[in-house]
Amino acid sequence: MEGIRESCLRAREAARKTALLSPEEKNRVLYACAKALREDTEQILAANRRDQDQAEDQGMSEGLLDRLTLTEKRIEAMAAGMEQVAALPDPVGEELERIERPNGLRIRKVRVPFGVIGIIYEARPNVTADAFALCFKAGSACVLKGGSAALETNLAIMESIRRGLLAAGADPDSAVLIRHTDRESTREMMRQKGILDVLIPRGSAGLIRSVVENATVPVIETGTGNCHVFVDASADPDMALSIIVNAKTQRVGVCNACESLLIHRDRLPEMVPLIARALGERGVQIFADESCRSIFPKLSAATEEDYGREYLDYKISMKAVDSLEEAIRHINRYGTGHSECIVTGDMERGRRFQQEVDAACVYVNASTRFTDGGEFGFGAEIGISTQKLHARGPMGLREITSYKYLIDGEGQIR
Amino acid sequence: MEGIRESCLRAREAARKTALLSPEEKNRVLYACAKALREDTEQILAANRRDQDQAEDQGMSEGLLDRLTLTEKRIEAMAAGMEQVAALPDPVGEELERIERPNGLRIRKVRVPFGVIGIIYEARPNVTADAFALCFKAGSACVLKGGSAALETNLAIMESIRRGLLAAGADPDSAVLIRHTDRESTREMMRQKGILDVLIPRGSAGLIRSVVENATVPVIETGTGNCHVFVDASADPDMALSIIVNAKTQRVGVCNACESLLIHRDRLPEMVPLIARALGERGVQIFADESCRSIFPKLSAATEEDYGREYLDYKISMKAVDSLEEAIRHINRYGTGHSECIVTGDMERGRRFQQEVDAACVYVNASTRFTDGGEFGFGAEIGISTQKLHARGPMGLREITSYKYLIDGEGQIR
Repeated sequence: MEGIRESCLRAREAARKTALLSPEEKNRVLYACAKALREDTEQILAANRRDQDQAEDQGMSEGLLDRLTLTEKRIEAMAAGMEQVAALPDPVGEELERIERPNGLRIRKVRVPFGVIGIIYEARPNVTADAFALCFKAGSACVLKGGSAALETNLAIMESIRRGLLAAGADPDSAVLIRHTDRESTREMMRQKGILDVLIPRGSAGLIRSVVENATVPVIETGTGNCHVFVDASADPDMALSIIVNAKTQRVGVCNACESLLIHRDRLPEMVPLIARALGERGVQIFADESCRSIFPKLSAATEEDYGREYLDYKISMKAVDSLEEAIRHINRYGTGHSECIVTGDMERGRRFQQEVDAACVYVNASTRFTDGGEFGFGAEIGISTQKLHARGPMGLREITSYKYLIDGEGQIR
Repeated sequence: MEGIRESCLRAREAARKTALLSPEEKNRVLYACAKALREDTEQILAANRRDQDQAEDQGMSEGLLDRLTLTEKRIEAMAAGMEQVAALPDPVGEELERIERPNGLRIRKVRVPFGVIGIIYEARPNVTADAFALCFKAGSACVLKGGSAALETNLAIMESIRRGLLAAGADPDSAVLIRHTDRESTREMMRQKGILDVLIPRGSAGLIRSVVENATVPVIETGTGNCHVFVDASADPDMALSIIVNAKTQRVGVCNACESLLIHRDRLPEMVPLIARALGERGVQIFADESCRSIFPKLSAATEEDYGREYLDYKISMKAVDSLEEAIRHINRYGTGHSECIVTGDMERGRRFQQEVDAACVYVNASTRFTDGGEFGFGAEIGISTQKLHARGPMGLREITSYKYLIDGEGQIR
C-alpha cells in the first residue's frame, strides 16, 4: 500500500493545478462529481452495507451506526450538497486590500487557496463528499482520513469523486483518501509539515486532542462545545425556557447544543421548577448544584466534573450564580470557546456578557444552535473552529483560504 | 522560582483586564512604559553590561554580541518605538462584518484581542520592549521568553515595563517574563494550551523548528527566509542588478534578504559576469551551478544543499533555469514561503509568477527587502509569518488579534 507521505505528495502536486482552475472549471468538476455519486449509488450502498455488517459484528453503538449508515436519500443529499457548494461565490482571487506606498510600490492582498488541506474525521461517510467539495471549491486539494469503520464506503465515494474529477478534466489526485487505518499512520499524516498546509480534525474531543498533541502541521481545532445558557436576573421566563429547551433538545449530539445552565440566584425559585419540568418531559437528566436541588430536590447532584462535560446526550448541568460576573467567570473557566448565551432583559448586561465571554459566538437572547455555517448565511461549513488562530466559529469557504501579497514595482530598492 | 504554568496563569488573569482597556488607557500605559525605560537607562545598561561580560567569557560571536548589546541610543529607540505603537490605530473592537438573517438575528463579526500571546526569542533585548508594546496595544497580555544570554537585560527592561504598567494603573502581569533558561522550561511553555492562545517564535530556523515540533499551543511561524530573485528572459539588466545587490547586501542578516538567484538561460552570458562582479565587489561569495560557472569560472561550485540554505551572510546561490516554469518549480521546492521576486519586462509573465509562486510576498520588479511591517505601512511588526494559517507576511497589530461573533436576538430558536 502507498505510504502516507506519498499519498500527501500526490495531493500536493495536484494542488498546484487545482489552485489555477477558474470558478467555472471548479464548478464543472463539482457537478460531474455529484453526477458520478448519483450514478454510483448502488455500489456505494453495497460498500456501506459491508461496513455496517462489520460494525454490527463489532458491537458499534446505535448512534454511531446511524451516522455510518447511508441510504439512497443520504447519497442524494451528498450529491445535492456538492451542487450547492458549486453555486456559492468563489472565494479565490478576491482582493482584500490595496496599498499604495510613497515609493510607488503597489501592494495587493489577495485571497489564495491553502494548497493541501488534511481532514481527519470519524465514521461519517458524508464528510468525505462534503469536505472534498468545500476544499475543492476553495481551490485546494485535500487528503482525507476517515474513520476505519467507514473505509469501504469512503473508498466507494472516493471512486465516484475521482471519476467526476477525471470526467471534468481535473487532476484526480485533488482528493486523496488515506487507506491506512492504524494509529501510527494517522500520526504520520499529522506530521506532513510542508506537504499539508493545514489539518482540520472533525470529531470527538479525544480525536482533536490527539491531533493537537501530535501534529506539526498547523491545526484548526473544531467542534468541542460545552455551551452555556445563562438566565440573567431580568430574563423573560418564557424566552429563557424556549431557548433552553431548543438549545438542549433540538439535537443533542451536536457541538452547538447546550450542555450547562447558569441561573441567576434571584430567579432560582421561579426558573428551576419550570426548567426541570420542561426538560424532564423531554427526557433530559439535570445535574444540579445544591442551590438548585434545594428548590427542586428530584434533580441529580452535580459534581465539579459535570460543569466541564460535553454530554452530547439528554443530560445537562445546572448551577446557581450570584452575579453576571460569576456567570462570565464560570463560562470562561469551563467553556470550550464555542457558543455561549445570555437571556436577559437588560441589553447593557448583554453587551458586557458578549464582551467578556471568551468564545467564538456569544448570543444575547437566541439559541446556541444557530452557530452553524448555514444559519450564518455562509452556504456551507467545514466545521466550527474553537480556537482563536485563523478562523473562529463557523468556517465556510473563505475560512479555508489563505492570502498573499502581490507587490508591483519598477525596480524599487531599499 | 515560580513555575512556568503559574507565570502563564498570571498573564491569563491580567489578559481579562487588558482586553477591556480603552484605546486611551492602553496608550497611557505605553507612554508610561516609555518614560520608565528612559528613566531606567542606567540600570538597564548596567544589566546589559553583565550579560555582555558573560557572553564574551563564553565566546559569543561578534554578530550575536552586537544584537545583545544595548546603548543609550538603542534604549531611546525602544522607548520611542513604544510611543510609535501608541500612536497607531487601535485594532480592537473594529466591526469586520455585519450580517442580518431572515429570522431577525443580527450577527456582528468584531475584532478582539487574542488573550495571551507567548513569544519565544533569542538574545535580542529590544524584542522584549517591542513585543510587549505590540501585544499590549492589541489588547493582549504577553508571556516573553528571551534568550538566556540576555536574561539580566530582559529582567531590567521588564522591571521598567512593570513600573510603567503600575504607574498608569494597569495590571503589571500584562507582561510576564519567564526567567527559566533551561530547555525543559521552554518546552513546558510551548505546551500551555488553554492558557496561552498563540505562540510566536522569533529567531533561528532551529528555534522555530523546535517550537513547531513541541508546541500544543497554536503557533505562528516567522522569519525563515530563503528568498529568491529570478532574472527573467526580458529583465532589464540594470534593474536586475540593482535589485540583486540591494536584496543581497543591504543587510545580510535579515530574513527578507535574497539567498538565491535564478537566471533565465537566455541571459546567462550577459548577466552572470555582471552579477558576479557587482556582488564580488561587495564581498559576496557565489555558489553557482555548472552552467553559470562555465561562463564565470571563478564562482564557487554549488551543491544541492546550497539551494535550500538561508545563509544570512555574504553568500548566495545561483542557478540557471530554462523557463519561467522551472523557476517557479525551483522556488516552490526550495523556498520557505517568505518573499520571492521576478525581474521581468513582461508583465504577463510577472503575473504568472505571482500567481504560481507559493509565498507570502511575491514581487515583480522590486527588492525582497520590502517585506516588512514598516515598509508595508503597518507602522510596526511583530514578525513575518511564513505559514498560511491566520496571518501571512508582515504581521502588524491586526495580525495579532482574533475575532468573535456577537449575535443579538429576541428569543430566536431553531
